[in-house]
Amino acid sequence: MKSSIDILIQNGLIVTMDDVNRVIEDGAVAIQDTEIIDVGTTSDLDAKYEAKEVIDADQHIVMPGLINAHTHLAMTLFRGFADDLPLDPFLARVWEAEGRFIRPDTVEIGTRLAFAELIRGGTTMALDMYWFPEASAEVASSVGFRLINGPIFVDFDGPDGIPAAERAQRGREFFHRYTENPFILPCVLPHGTYTVSPDILTQAWELADEFDALFHTHASETADEVSTVRERYGKTPPEHLDHLGLLTPRTSLAHCVHLNEADIEIVAERGAAVVHCPISNLKMGSGIAPLPQMHAAGVPVLLGTDGSATGNDLDMWKHMRIAAILHRGVHHDPTFQPAEKVVSSVTREAAEALGIGNRFGSIEAGKFADLILIDLNSVHLAPMYNVFSHLVYAVGREDVSTVIIHGRVVMRQRELLTIDEAETVARTRELAAKFAEAMPLS
Amino acid sequence: MKSSIDILIQNGLIVTMDDVNRVIEDGAVAIQDTEIIDVGTTSDLDAKYEAKEVIDADQHIVMPGLINAHTHLAMTLFRGFADDLPLDPFLARVWEAEGRFIRPDTVEIGTRLAFAELIRGGTTMALDMYWFPEASAEVASSVGFRLINGPIFVDFDGPDGIPAAERAQRGREFFHRYTENPFILPCVLPHGTYTVSPDILTQAWELADEFDALFHTHASETADEVSTVRERYGKTPPEHLDHLGLLTPRTSLAHCVHLNEADIEIVAERGAAVVHCPISNLKMGSGIAPLPQMHAAGVPVLLGTDGSATGNDLDMWKHMRIAAILHRGVHHDPTFQPAEKVVSSVTREAAEALGIGNRFGSIEAGKFADLILIDLNSVHLAPMYNVFSHLVYAVGREDVSTVIIHGRVVMRQRELLTIDEAETVARTRELAAKFAEAMPLS
Repeated sequence: MKSSIDILIQNGLIVTMDDVNRVIEDGAVAIQDTEIIDVGTTSDLDAKYEAKEVIDADQHIVMPGLINAHTHLAMTLFRGFADDLPLDPFLARVWEAEGRFIRPDTVEIGTRLAFAELIRGGTTMALDMYWFPEASAEVASSVGFRLINGPIFVDFDGPDGIPAAERAQRGREFFHRYTENPFILPCVLPHGTYTVSPDILTQAWELADEFDALFHTHASETADEVSTVRERYGKTPPEHLDHLGLLTPRTSLAHCVHLNEADIEIVAERGAAVVHCPISNLKMGSGIAPLPQMHAAGVPVLLGTDGSATGNDLDMWKHMRIAAILHRGVHHDPTFQPAEKVVSSVTREAAEALGIGNRFGSIEAGKFADLILIDLNSVHLAPMYNVFSHLVYAVGREDVSTVIIHGRVVMRQRELLTIDEAETVARTRELAAKFAEAMPLS
Repeated sequence: MKSSIDILIQNGLIVTMDDVNRVIEDGAVAIQDTEIIDVGTTSDLDAKYEAKEVIDADQHIVMPGLINAHTHLAMTLFRGFADDLPLDPFLARVWEAEGRFIRPDTVEIGTRLAFAELIRGGTTMALDMYWFPEASAEVASSVGFRLINGPIFVDFDGPDGIPAAERAQRGREFFHRYTENPFILPCVLPHGTYTVSPDILTQAWELADEFDALFHTHASETADEVSTVRERYGKTPPEHLDHLGLLTPRTSLAHCVHLNEADIEIVAERGAAVVHCPISNLKMGSGIAPLPQMHAAGVPVLLGTDGSATGNDLDMWKHMRIAAILHRGVHHDPTFQPAEKVVSSVTREAAEALGIGNRFGSIEAGKFADLILIDLNSVHLAPMYNVFSHLVYAVGREDVSTVIIHGRVVMRQRELLTIDEAETVARTRELAAKFAEAMPLS
């Protein structure tokens, strides 16, 4: 007799991203409530299960949802607001705009827009560092998006007006509020070693430690940042963090463009992860992260889009492609980081480095049902010889047809089911018109 | 009284790419037969013209079609056929496949697939270097795509089996056959200085000279190629071409990754153009072309996708984006190549460098009606502060909604009107299955 389940995806090309990156032709995935309970061939699973909803994945790839490991979601509001400027005028313009316009209600709009873009592009989980994290967490819960976020720590008063000394306590409230929410994975987000004093960094770490949470910060994004930290502490950002005891397997560092060999060694030794943000780093002129050296040292390297004020979009496919090819060109090595490795860096390896590999990052029984379908019927996807190669070098955001998060279909055949797109776009445009009027582009 | 015209596009944001990159809000374009006859505001043109077909461009950008200045179209058949390999095994595999499978009928299928992808992505003109150019030219004529192609010159016998000594005569026949065809812009395509002897290069040039045609060749793509040419002739590829008198304003050179200062100077002095292929150059490990130096020297730099065996797709938006940001990262300069310049490099500047600026590359009266509409209603395009920034950093191939070539609508609201996509994809998959069976991926 067949077991009753909620969803059966069948007839698909299943890219499991399990330990051996197993691919199942004519495959099926069984979902019960929020979880994947079985993975196999269509005929096997058809014989075992009776599903309330059957999703036909013929001519589709089925794979884990993508993980964007570093972004500032509400900055979609500033997409293209300060392009083609040198770094200082760029920062001045964006910070002024944030000071003037960022409040919980604007964060809510920008984050909702971001979720629409992320889901459309097949991203099911993002690590978001931004002001008013409660506003973003509320949208994530209502939309059904898997959000890693939490309190920011900085020395100066941000747009949220929270004094540095109160951030730890406010952060603790965030943890208490969201620890049981399945869509929110609370983490601790000190901004960086050049913007957060050792004392506040340590308070942030204590909070992370108290809740066994991720500790995520910017590190060594620009040469200037490294100089500043060296002058102040006589150490590079990773050395400084390590000196404070904050480089651990729960630590992840965004950017890491300017790491020297000793930095890479210490990051590797401590088991910390790095989040590569190649589009932002290139566009801002920050430089190119030493990926081959990090890989050689065994540092887990994840991928992030950064915010849309710098990178302009949240498209993980473009980031995967650039991450795959950039370092080949720089190092004259066409074999660096084969496609399978790149796919892994935004699925299984990402989840493992974030400490949640037991529930996320692959299509296996016992993991949460966060997965996506990719339609192979576009002309730019014909023909296909190798599925991993296709995922990295040919698939685009527009090929994602259906997205499931926590067992719930949030996009079906390109239609978003939990976000009113037209309203979100209209509200965004209204806001942006105000921003542009108040701070016109010269 | 109103004049009768064929097409009036109205209510759009017109990015003319004229000499001053004029942008017209609430703008209109009047098309009669194959030409743009007027450009202005919607109210002005509405008062002047009565159109057989009115295209509403509300919430759309209207701009010139993109120009892909270096590709090998039928290699879409080998998309992902030899990824992640070192250069020599890559070349061995692709050349073997070409030798075994490339014939006029396979070129026809691969090129048709490429036109579908190009049109969907808003590219209206491509320079295609490939075997059996007549096969591609026939498809272009029937589809209504603007193709720059013509005879290839190589020393060895290619898949077409034409002996080197007969290529000039066969090429002359191509010119006679297609010179009057509005969709075909015949050109001369010697493969490169390492694969074509001085004698054959000179014969190719004489043919170009006879017909006032473009002379397009690969140059300095890899360090090995430069070494080979140096060993053989004591000169770099550009020096060697110049020595033979073949560097002229009608000459364009694909890749140019490994140019030294003297090379750049001589290319600039002779008025030749360079076609930058950043995705191919990165992915193949060839390196990064010295764009800032070329710009400083005044060399026109166009943009090309190369073939889909190397770059995997024909998406000019991705190429624009990478071209815009790559050199900023390498040279730590976030102001290099502002967005307007990048858009110009695939429209007006491209047409001018190809010697056809009088009829192509901008939306102005008297130019051919080769233009595209971009739908601004996607979440990833909200909000918009600056249209050029949006075109380079945010717009994707899927945002192109309508494409007009030679005054004829070839895609309307994402529906291709001159290509049977399903049949083309099916034929491609059938062929690819044969290729994969005969030459399995290890």
